[in-house]
Amino acid sequence: MSDPKQIPEPPSPPSRRAFLRTSLALGGAVGTGAFAGKAAAVESKNLPPNVPEWSQGLGDGVVSRPYGRPSKFEADVIRRDVEWLTASRQSSVSFTPLHQLEGIITPNGLGFERHHGGIAEIDPAEHRLMIHGLVEKPLMLTLEDVRRFPRVNRIAFLECAANSGMEWKGAQLNGCQFTHGMVHCVMYTGVPLKLLLEEAGLKTNAKWLLPEGADAAAMTRSVPIEKALDDAMVAYAMNGEALYPEHGYPLRLVLPGWQGNMWVKWLRRIKVGDEPWQTREETSKYTALLPDGRARRFTWAMDAKSVITSPSPQAPMHHKGFTVLSGLAWSGRGKISQVDVSLDGGRNWRAARLDGPVLDKALTRFYYEFDWTGDPLLLQSRAVDETGYVQPTKAALRRHRGLNSIYHNNGIQTWHVLPSGEIENVEVA
Amino acid sequence: MSDPKQIPEPPSPPSRRAFLRTSLALGGAVGTGAFAGKAAAVESKNLPPNVPEWSQGLGDGVVSRPYGRPSKFEADVIRRDVEWLTASRQSSVSFTPLHQLEGIITPNGLGFERHHGGIAEIDPAEHRLMIHGLVEKPLMLTLEDVRRFPRVNRIAFLECAANSGMEWKGAQLNGCQFTHGMVHCVMYTGVPLKLLLEEAGLKTNAKWLLPEGADAAAMTRSVPIEKALDDAMVAYAMNGEALYPEHGYPLRLVLPGWQGNMWVKWLRRIKVGDEPWQTREETSKYTALLPDGRARRFTWAMDAKSVITSPSPQAPMHHKGFTVLSGLAWSGRGKISQVDVSLDGGRNWRAARLDGPVLDKALTRFYYEFDWTGDPLLLQSRAVDETGYVQPTKAALRRHRGLNSIYHNNGIQTWHVLPSGEIENVEVA
Repeated sequence: MSDPKQIPEPPSPPSRRAFLRTSLALGGAVGTGAFAGKAAAVESKNLPPNVPEWSQGLGDGVVSRPYGRPSKFEADVIRRDVEWLTASRQSSVSFTPLHQLEGIITPNGLGFERHHGGIAEIDPAEHRLMIHGLVEKPLMLTLEDVRRFPRVNRIAFLECAANSGMEWKGAQLNGCQFTHGMVHCVMYTGVPLKLLLEEAGLKTNAKWLLPEGADAAAMTRSVPIEKALDDAMVAYAMNGEALYPEHGYPLRLVLPGWQGNMWVKWLRRIKVGDEPWQTREETSKYTALLPDGRARRFTWAMDAKSVITSPSPQAPMHHKGFTVLSGLAWSGRGKISQVDVSLDGGRNWRAARLDGPVLDKALTRFYYEFDWTGDPLLLQSRAVDETGYVQPTKAALRRHRGLNSIYHNNGIQTWHVLPSGEIENVEVA
Repeated sequence: MSDPKQIPEPPSPPSRRAFLRTSLALGGAVGTGAFAGKAAAVESKNLPPNVPEWSQGLGDGVVSRPYGRPSKFEADVIRRDVEWLTASRQSSVSFTPLHQLEGIITPNGLGFERHHGGIAEIDPAEHRLMIHGLVEKPLMLTLEDVRRFPRVNRIAFLECAANSGMEWKGAQLNGCQFTHGMVHCVMYTGVPLKLLLEEAGLKTNAKWLLPEGADAAAMTRSVPIEKALDDAMVAYAMNGEALYPEHGYPLRLVLPGWQGNMWVKWLRRIKVGDEPWQTREETSKYTALLPDGRARRFTWAMDAKSVITSPSPQAPMHHKGFTVLSGLAWSGRGKISQVDVSLDGGRNWRAARLDGPVLDKALTRFYYEFDWTGDPLLLQSRAVDETGYVQPTKAALRRHRGLNSIYHNNGIQTWHVLPSGEIENVEVA
């Protein structure tokens, strides 16, 4: 955890005219001059003015890959884990490569994983969803039965309660893939849980649900009935296709805005009861020990949060001049209404530009364009949601919650940009 | 092409109460009774009340697949081609499996392909984008240069001009994957083309662009400057990650709402000129020969269109009673404002339910729930866009365009549901 002594004066954001001037300078470096002058110095036979090899012969035909995959040149864009974090990989986590992604949709192959007993590999023909307990008519549904209910579509983020948890005591992991990568965002399709519960017929004393996974851990959490009757879904598709096995194929519970461990994967049953079950996942885990010894539990909604994905430690800066800063913001309580960016560790803030759809309980993409002179920077972003909640500093969070916690760290992240363009995870006092 | 004599009376859409009654019947079949009574008759050791094998042992750990893929049980969800359509697969087409998808996002591995010289496999370090012709300052941009411009995100459909082209003379291919599968919809990220052209500096007589691909076919089309300065993009990402090779990695032109052949893949240069180039792709191909011998060309925007994706020939009906009909609608001229569904070959129409985001020039998902008695049906859908344009019948299209055409067939599709639940591609007179 470094504490840079020199906090630079804030560069101004470029006006539209300034952008054009700056990019004209870029054009001067790579435009006419390069076009006319550098071609002769080119070493690769594939660079202009040569005709590249891929223009000289037929490529593979259609359905050479009936289900496509990324270019071999993108082989580094993958989920990664941190081996020392957990004793086994069956109860562990991998991280979304946030620093390499664009927009707000996470490809299905890149969404982070969190398993408690490894990936259940389920034959859908031999999977059932049971709904029982305080209902008039217990149900045992095949997947085809589930698909016969009216369905809905929704783009939603999913964040692990422990995302950024390794950073509670200080800056630790160098890369937003590792500090913030336990979040992804896809379009889910499924049946509103409300319709399944109506089908089963809730008894008047029905107050809580216990969803259970068909994995070896039989992952279970208590969910209050109000959420189940609001916007909860039993989903079978993400981004248009069936759930991937590591995301709960063939069924997962979707609880928009709420912490990921409650979105039970490989969903096999939902028991209806009149009080919470006090499972291991809501007593030993997924509660936070406060400084005074009390436990903070049932912390379901994810607080507003943001992170600058690029530049960041795994995506250093290569150019001075006009620079595109890109990041993600989200809130479990609604839409993002504003994101501010600071280049000087929180002294001065300017409004970022939100681009693309700004949806309820979904990732929101923001940009901030500025001129980088080569001076050191302390990059920060701060999300505000439609309830008026403002993302706090890490210091403010620690004043309230102490240092015993793992969960719900939504403090403002700082990246220290060195004159070399390299970037470090740091904290400012 | 069959012409069923019996056109059934239209079933009424179920009211909310009717849905519940119907689904209670479903519950009766698979609910309490099955739960209590059928368990003993179960043959598989994985069905309740047994504990399935996937709950009895640890599964694979995290990053066992650093880039994920679908369950092995979804191996049939793939792009497919029709071998007799083209002489080679390097200049051919594969089809999106629309009947198996949900929502409006197409996974990157499932978007249809149309190549003219096979898939160019490009090393991004040795790829350049040249902008030249009627500009003040020709540019030769690396990918890193392109990424230094301000970027935007947009969900857009992409449809081949020849989608449904095999159906001009009559119902031919049995499955909406083949009749309508040359369309997909993803979130693109890239730089507005307008900014690149501003950087190069358009001369006053700049009226047309010639984008060219780095594939063996050097695919080229003339694009009017008005579109380039409106919503055109040079994209490098789809659904958050780099373009897949078959979709133009590392750069493709995006022209929202316009026919796919103009969205040049593997984009290597954009020449600026003062008139169209009259390339093969806008004279020999991608024009339509009208009955009077004139050629209908420069048909850029895709007309409003829709298709019922399920039930459909590759997704037959397995149940009587409450049925979810699902489909997609889109328009190259704006948002979808309404979709109507007919169960009786166009005699009676009822409003479908639009679900999920309804975005400009994007796929829109619609549903229609009804009770199926087992009688034959003639399923149709009809899209209306915000300009008031109404998707025409095939007969109306042919009156205007004759039978020589391949392109821009947006006529209303008919699926004939047999009492067995099997479904055929047909036309009604």
